[in-house]
Amino acid sequence: MYLIRGGTVVTADDTRRCDVLIDGSRIASVGPDLEVPMGCTVVDADGLMVMPGGIDPHTHMEMPFMGATASDDFETGTRAGLVGGTTTIIDFVIPTAGGSLVEAWRDWRAKAGKATADYSFHVAVTHWDERVHDEMGVLTREHGVNSFKHFMAYKGALMVDDGVLLRSVKRALELGALCNVHAENGDAVAYLQADLLARGITGPEAHPMSRPPEVEGEAAGRAIAIAGLLGAPIYIVHVSTKDATDAIARARSAGQRVYGEVLAQHLVIDDSVYQNPDWLGAAQHVMSPPFRPKSHQTALWAGLASGQLQTTATDHCCFCAPQKEAGRNDFTKIPNGTPGIEDRMSVLWHHGVGKGRLTPQEFVAVTSANTAKIFNIYPRKGSIAPGADADIVLWDPVAERTISAATHHQRVDYNVFEGMRVSGVARSVFSGGRLAVHEGDIRAKRGDGAYVERPCFSDTFDALARRRASSGTTA
Amino acid sequence: MYLIRGGTVVTADDTRRCDVLIDGSRIASVGPDLEVPMGCTVVDADGLMVMPGGIDPHTHMEMPFMGATASDDFETGTRAGLVGGTTTIIDFVIPTAGGSLVEAWRDWRAKAGKATADYSFHVAVTHWDERVHDEMGVLTREHGVNSFKHFMAYKGALMVDDGVLLRSVKRALELGALCNVHAENGDAVAYLQADLLARGITGPEAHPMSRPPEVEGEAAGRAIAIAGLLGAPIYIVHVSTKDATDAIARARSAGQRVYGEVLAQHLVIDDSVYQNPDWLGAAQHVMSPPFRPKSHQTALWAGLASGQLQTTATDHCCFCAPQKEAGRNDFTKIPNGTPGIEDRMSVLWHHGVGKGRLTPQEFVAVTSANTAKIFNIYPRKGSIAPGADADIVLWDPVAERTISAATHHQRVDYNVFEGMRVSGVARSVFSGGRLAVHEGDIRAKRGDGAYVERPCFSDTFDALARRRASSGTTA
Amino acid sequence: MYLIRGGTVVTADDTRRCDVLIDGSRIASVGPDLEVPMGCTVVDADGLMVMPGGIDPHTHMEMPFMGATASDDFETGTRAGLVGGTTTIIDFVIPTAGGSLVEAWRDWRAKAGKATADYSFHVAVTHWDERVHDEMGVLTREHGVNSFKHFMAYKGALMVDDGVLLRSVKRALELGALCNVHAENGDAVAYLQADLLARGITGPEAHPMSRPPEVEGEAAGRAIAIAGLLGAPIYIVHVSTKDATDAIARARSAGQRVYGEVLAQHLVIDDSVYQNPDWLGAAQHVMSPPFRPKSHQTALWAGLASGQLQTTATDHCCFCAPQKEAGRNDFTKIPNGTPGIEDRMSVLWHHGVGKGRLTPQEFVAVTSANTAKIFNIYPRKGSIAPGADADIVLWDPVAERTISAATHHQRVDYNVFEGMRVSGVARSVFSGGRLAVHEGDIRAKRGDGAYVERPCFSDTFDALARRRASSGTTA
Amino acid sequence: MYLIRGGTVVTADDTRRCDVLIDGSRIASVGPDLEVPMGCTVVDADGLMVMPGGIDPHTHMEMPFMGATASDDFETGTRAGLVGGTTTIIDFVIPTAGGSLVEAWRDWRAKAGKATADYSFHVAVTHWDERVHDEMGVLTREHGVNSFKHFMAYKGALMVDDGVLLRSVKRALELGALCNVHAENGDAVAYLQADLLARGITGPEAHPMSRPPEVEGEAAGRAIAIAGLLGAPIYIVHVSTKDATDAIARARSAGQRVYGEVLAQHLVIDDSVYQNPDWLGAAQHVMSPPFRPKSHQTALWAGLASGQLQTTATDHCCFCAPQKEAGRNDFTKIPNGTPGIEDRMSVLWHHGVGKGRLTPQEFVAVTSANTAKIFNIYPRKGSIAPGADADIVLWDPVAERTISAATHHQRVDYNVFEGMRVSGVARSVFSGGRLAVHEGDIRAKRGDGAYVERPCFSDTFDALARRRASSGTTA
Ligand SMILES: [Zn+2]
Ligand SMILES: [Zn+2]
Ligand SMILES: [Zn+2]
Ligand SMILES: [Zn+2]
Ligand SMILES: [Zn+2]
Ligand SMILES: [Zn+2]
Ligand SMILES: [Zn+2]
Ligand SMILES: [Zn+2]
Repeated sequence: MYLIRGGTVVTADDTRRCDVLIDGSRIASVGPDLEVPMGCTVVDADGLMVMPGGIDPHTHMEMPFMGATASDDFETGTRAGLVGGTTTIIDFVIPTAGGSLVEAWRDWRAKAGKATADYSFHVAVTHWDERVHDEMGVLTREHGVNSFKHFMAYKGALMVDDGVLLRSVKRALELGALCNVHAENGDAVAYLQADLLARGITGPEAHPMSRPPEVEGEAAGRAIAIAGLLGAPIYIVHVSTKDATDAIARARSAGQRVYGEVLAQHLVIDDSVYQNPDWLGAAQHVMSPPFRPKSHQTALWAGLASGQLQTTATDHCCFCAPQKEAGRNDFTKIPNGTPGIEDRMSVLWHHGVGKGRLTPQEFVAVTSANTAKIFNIYPRKGSIAPGADADIVLWDPVAERTISAATHHQRVDYNVFEGMRVSGVARSVFSGGRLAVHEGDIRAKRGDGAYVERPCFSDTFDALARRRASSGTTA
Repeated sequence: MYLIRGGTVVTADDTRRCDVLIDGSRIASVGPDLEVPMGCTVVDADGLMVMPGGIDPHTHMEMPFMGATASDDFETGTRAGLVGGTTTIIDFVIPTAGGSLVEAWRDWRAKAGKATADYSFHVAVTHWDERVHDEMGVLTREHGVNSFKHFMAYKGALMVDDGVLLRSVKRALELGALCNVHAENGDAVAYLQADLLARGITGPEAHPMSRPPEVEGEAAGRAIAIAGLLGAPIYIVHVSTKDATDAIARARSAGQRVYGEVLAQHLVIDDSVYQNPDWLGAAQHVMSPPFRPKSHQTALWAGLASGQLQTTATDHCCFCAPQKEAGRNDFTKIPNGTPGIEDRMSVLWHHGVGKGRLTPQEFVAVTSANTAKIFNIYPRKGSIAPGADADIVLWDPVAERTISAATHHQRVDYNVFEGMRVSGVARSVFSGGRLAVHEGDIRAKRGDGAYVERPCFSDTFDALARRRASSGTTA
Repeated sequence: MYLIRGGTVVTADDTRRCDVLIDGSRIASVGPDLEVPMGCTVVDADGLMVMPGGIDPHTHMEMPFMGATASDDFETGTRAGLVGGTTTIIDFVIPTAGGSLVEAWRDWRAKAGKATADYSFHVAVTHWDERVHDEMGVLTREHGVNSFKHFMAYKGALMVDDGVLLRSVKRALELGALCNVHAENGDAVAYLQADLLARGITGPEAHPMSRPPEVEGEAAGRAIAIAGLLGAPIYIVHVSTKDATDAIARARSAGQRVYGEVLAQHLVIDDSVYQNPDWLGAAQHVMSPPFRPKSHQTALWAGLASGQLQTTATDHCCFCAPQKEAGRNDFTKIPNGTPGIEDRMSVLWHHGVGKGRLTPQEFVAVTSANTAKIFNIYPRKGSIAPGADADIVLWDPVAERTISAATHHQRVDYNVFEGMRVSGVARSVFSGGRLAVHEGDIRAKRGDGAYVERPCFSDTFDALARRRASSGTTA
Repeated sequence: MYLIRGGTVVTADDTRRCDVLIDGSRIASVGPDLEVPMGCTVVDADGLMVMPGGIDPHTHMEMPFMGATASDDFETGTRAGLVGGTTTIIDFVIPTAGGSLVEAWRDWRAKAGKATADYSFHVAVTHWDERVHDEMGVLTREHGVNSFKHFMAYKGALMVDDGVLLRSVKRALELGALCNVHAENGDAVAYLQADLLARGITGPEAHPMSRPPEVEGEAAGRAIAIAGLLGAPIYIVHVSTKDATDAIARARSAGQRVYGEVLAQHLVIDDSVYQNPDWLGAAQHVMSPPFRPKSHQTALWAGLASGQLQTTATDHCCFCAPQKEAGRNDFTKIPNGTPGIEDRMSVLWHHGVGKGRLTPQEFVAVTSANTAKIFNIYPRKGSIAPGADADIVLWDPVAERTISAATHHQRVDYNVFEGMRVSGVARSVFSGGRLAVHEGDIRAKRGDGAYVERPCFSDTFDALARRRASSGTTA
């Protein structure tokens, strides 16, 4: 039992001085000047903001990918998240080629048992057959999965074509589950990669050339069109371009329910990193979509502030130097991914709230509340209210720190924000009612995290069904 | 003391079965299976939704305008609002030409003393001089005003030019107050009116011809540009066109803080009403902006669902047949205005939620919560939470009624929704903790309403100040 | 030798009273009051406009398609074109599955030998291999082909995926040839067709439901993105939607060289035709893209007037009632296509010039000159100037006629413009210097037409090469 | 009599090797291998392009403005134009406050008598009364004026409000004349200037701060809306922003006839010039609209290539150092204007054609032909055809020169393109059939220029009238 006293509770809706009482894994009450129950530990939050713990809806812990396995596992990755104020992740279950979704989900559940903070799973659909159709049903009915992932890129590996995407989106709609997509045109990427290699351009500087902004804008537009045909919602992961942001905004202005996620990395780092003469320095920034020319960042920030983009994530996927080396002579073999989970909250606060792009309430919206709503775990997650999970961060809005691999908790040998001085620091973090981090002391233990089941049929699905009925959409 | 038992509490964020305890004028607690305190009246909400009472941020009770005075006064108008589920209005104080803002505010306060429900005021700035500058300060500091209104139309009467608008927006920004504008190009309207009259087109069918969509789109774009120059927020009242909606969306996508309000009437009625061969029937629909071709409605609904438009209102302004007759031979003399306050909630529910354009939570957002946030009275208004004003509507989502002047409570002799069958009915309405309406029995009394002071400097202002500082905007 | 005397010469640039002297197959001189050479026939053009003969860049004469063969052959189809004022067509060579492009081109050349007016060919690329790559070179170097066609729809038949499209566009760019695309998402069409059939919706009313506007807008956007990646120009055939028009305009505003073609049919006929209770009446309008809701027409007309869409065509492809019957029980088996070549010019004149959407000069631009420029046969075609081919129409701008299958010259048993009264009639038509049609008397003979070789590397290609060089585009 | 032999004639439509025969002031014939008539001077154009002389539709020779008089007069200014390949200007007649338009036109005619090349006049409408209405008629009927200018900026001096603009646009529409506007919101500029001065920011760096892009975008949108209300065409001078370009493109995509002009200066110079620590260096770049952030240039170039912007000009208006000094302590007193007429053609060629943004034909379109068409003097100007004025430039596409005030012919002591190395040089220039410049030798003499009357009612007006009739626009 904890009483957080004297802080300013900030949620997506509201800001007020309030105490928060935690009983067991839940919040028991929220109000001014709460009584201290017997046996309750008081945590002083004077001068601090009391906010919902961050939710990172896009991580890849210990993912096998491109011949390597991401170095941060569910234990180390979630621990680093806690240090930074993130208390829940939604990771991705990736079935083997042609394999069972349910089995893959079981594998991932097993791997994630060691997590120090709560976790949930999107499950990827990478091919289509009757079993996939059926297992989507099993996962939603029996295993608390309400979202499915699709790769429009990674041709020859994870990529699905439009026919598979249509079938999966339709099936998910029946099940009340939300589809999300990695939107890059995989045919184009493969073509451009081959062309670059053929021309002898093999270094990391070729990476962004093989995936220019149009490649993402096109695919985002296509995914939206496909969802629109079916009257289904769609969620675009890691929107990194003005092109995709515009496509989302246009669709929303036409009445479609489309959501967009932005990575902390894309908001503040631009494509100049690929000009780094140090091969490794450049290779460490190889991720997809790649970093973009600076002008795209304005659109991303404005998208978050205007509500046309709703969530922030990290696509946290760590590969150390020896792993990145696999692509020394061929940029297409550099394992794609960057770390980020530990620093997302600080980066968003400093560059978002600190520079006036976001209000503190909007910060909460884009770091947790919107995500919880879209993935239908609100108000259990993403809120500070009686009955909610006690996932809480005590945020010091003015304290500063310098981000560095030398001090971070991520199990990876670099940090893309290396040297960045940020204001906004998580002083204490509660996770499931436990004081997981307190003034630098990490108390969260392996296995403390729990699997978060997410129910299907969020409110939006009822509205969509009425909409299809009343507009006579027939697909 | 009331206990609302067994209902489904719906707010802008959340939907859950909960009881609500009202103590005095405030909500005391919200939770499942609350105890019934001694002396507490239990109100059964089984099968009902328990939602924040509606806020109508745009009404004109007993307004002197165009030689007439609006027939619904603060008592009758707020009573009709209560019957429909609206528990708060924000009306407009209109100073006399060149006159004192503070004196006008006092006049309106005096007139509004008889209101049966809560009320607040925007104050119009219709000219510029040192006194206006100073009185804006007085109103914000001493009288709870945090918003100022500007008319870009009504040339020769209320209209201000861009120079006045710039000065007022700048002054309001200093004061932490939000400017709102009636966006129509007054020069163009005056020109087109004169031209139509000169050509002998004098009936109500000329009204929309004198104020085509471009006239609104242009002015909205101009107001937005002016606010943008100053780094100030801006709120566009009664957005009725795709043109203005697009202008707002474009500005928001560029990172500007712009808000748009939609009238229930514009969402469902189109410009065919002006073809009514019955002069009075057509004249009763004369309001500004006028009703529009049906295609604009799609943009307005999508704007609300996507969050690019945030609030709904009615511009409630009633003129009876003898008053409308003043323009029998000259459409420019028809007093502008339509009733709406009583039916807004039902119209939004039926055509919004019923047809899947909005979720129930979005319904709450656009009928109360967003308005409360923008005008900085959230969570006192627009929420169901301990400490909030006990302004609550028990909403029957499936009950039906037929709208008609024969049965409505507005003091006006027609209803623009006449004959419309809608589902969604306010069963009981609490206002300031009083059971104001209960199953058709109107218990609210003259003077029950209270003046709502609204503090300046909502969160947005801090973000805007940081933004101006960090982008080096110098104006 | 002919002297056209007393007419008003209208070109895309200019309007002036002038005589035109034809010597052999070419225009010898243009000027006021030309002398009548010995042996020269004088044709009186008093009161008439003297304009370049129409070019229809999109026809399918005697095309084998969907199990039928288009009923108008190169003789009858070009003759009908001449009657309506069209003197050149560009038809499509469609190789057999996996077959040789050059052989197909030879087949088409052979079939077209009987044409009464000039003809040229786009050649379709429907798969990719080394032979296709090489034959594209042969066709451009040896056979006067400077454009290649790609189908993004017709899955399982003509459709290519993005990988093929990228390779073909790149190859064409090397060769100085222009790629064009039928832009509809074939995966989506196949999915929707199967879904409709599965739900028992089998009639022609299902046709537009299987190819809604988004399906075209998406594919147009994708084709544009692909061309943009390569720095190549792209031409979108039969643009029928606001969606695709907007995609083109956006790309052009970003500096890309994109062209769009509109069919006369789409400009004036809307999707209400599919509600025809007469099965055949509806089936006769089955073409792809289908007819659209009326609101799209505004965008198409504005696109032509603003220059964002450049050409008009007909996709002339005739199937008679017995052929259409093949789809009596399954709309996906109705041969796709409508007639149009004979009436395009009149329809464009009446609805374009007559209603003020186009000036007469713009009419010439969109019916011939722009097409000749884009396909690099200007000023040989599309102009009235010394040295140009004597393809000339004497146009009566005020004469009227009623379009009907009963009187038309197309070899097909219906006309989609049946009963339409139009002003604008071709009085006389010169084709290659011959008086092919004169006041209703058709003099053109089988085989009068000649094959038009089109050189590669229009001006645009040099600019694109400089652009790629100076922007450092590397693909 | 001159025969231009062996060159490549490039017009807006066509490129071909041809000779050109000049007889008197007109072109007598154009064709391959023309005979050399007796007494004819042969000019060798081998390796050169033969193009229509440039038309600069926006100059201010010897204009009295802001207390100074522009230093280049009609003689020196037109001579400098000839050297650079520009053979016609359209200058602006500015009446005195409240004064007669016809008298002002007479004054300007008198001043322009000394011009060395052809000239024409737009006449500014700076207020509205019955005399203005009548004199607009006189000017169009008797004096060859077909365009009127309006300033939306320069409050307190030239600025008109929307009421005046509406009246003038309507009157011009009746007369078949085209209105053009300087689009900047004058109220906003005045406000921002006063604000900057009040804050002690008085140097040239304040100039762009007082006229940010929104100020132009807003006014362009407003002018377009006003023209749209009346069904009139409109021409926006000196479009310098993406904002205004987008406004034009949107209107055109909605079917409106809107034209945009771009200055050579804005295409290649950005707002970094105002950071010049040398006061005079910065002040020499003070013009309105000001130079813009580089990102706007992309939109301008794409606008020209796509045809959404049609013409290029210079707003040539020269003030020497002592004149610029008037604003030493107050940037609002720096006479606005920059030179440009001599270098426009080279700058457009080098940065346009040389970098692949424009084809040579598009170069001709945007430097002369489009202008001639819009202002209804085509094909007399802007073409190379028999009967056209012999205004011809022999253009060396590869020769280079370095632009400098040290060598230029403009009567002003600086050049905004100072030091720029450009390819594309006018070798010889014919003006009205005279060899005005030949290999550096300037032969044009004071008074050689002639006044160009421009007839009203270009083709567009007929189309607009039909459009208004058929759409039932009633204004
Ligand atoms: Zn991804
Ligand atoms: Zn990922
Ligand atoms: Zn209003
Ligand atoms: Zn109002
Ligand atoms: Zn096709
Ligand atoms: Zn076709
Ligand atoms: Zn100007
Ligand atoms: Zn000027």
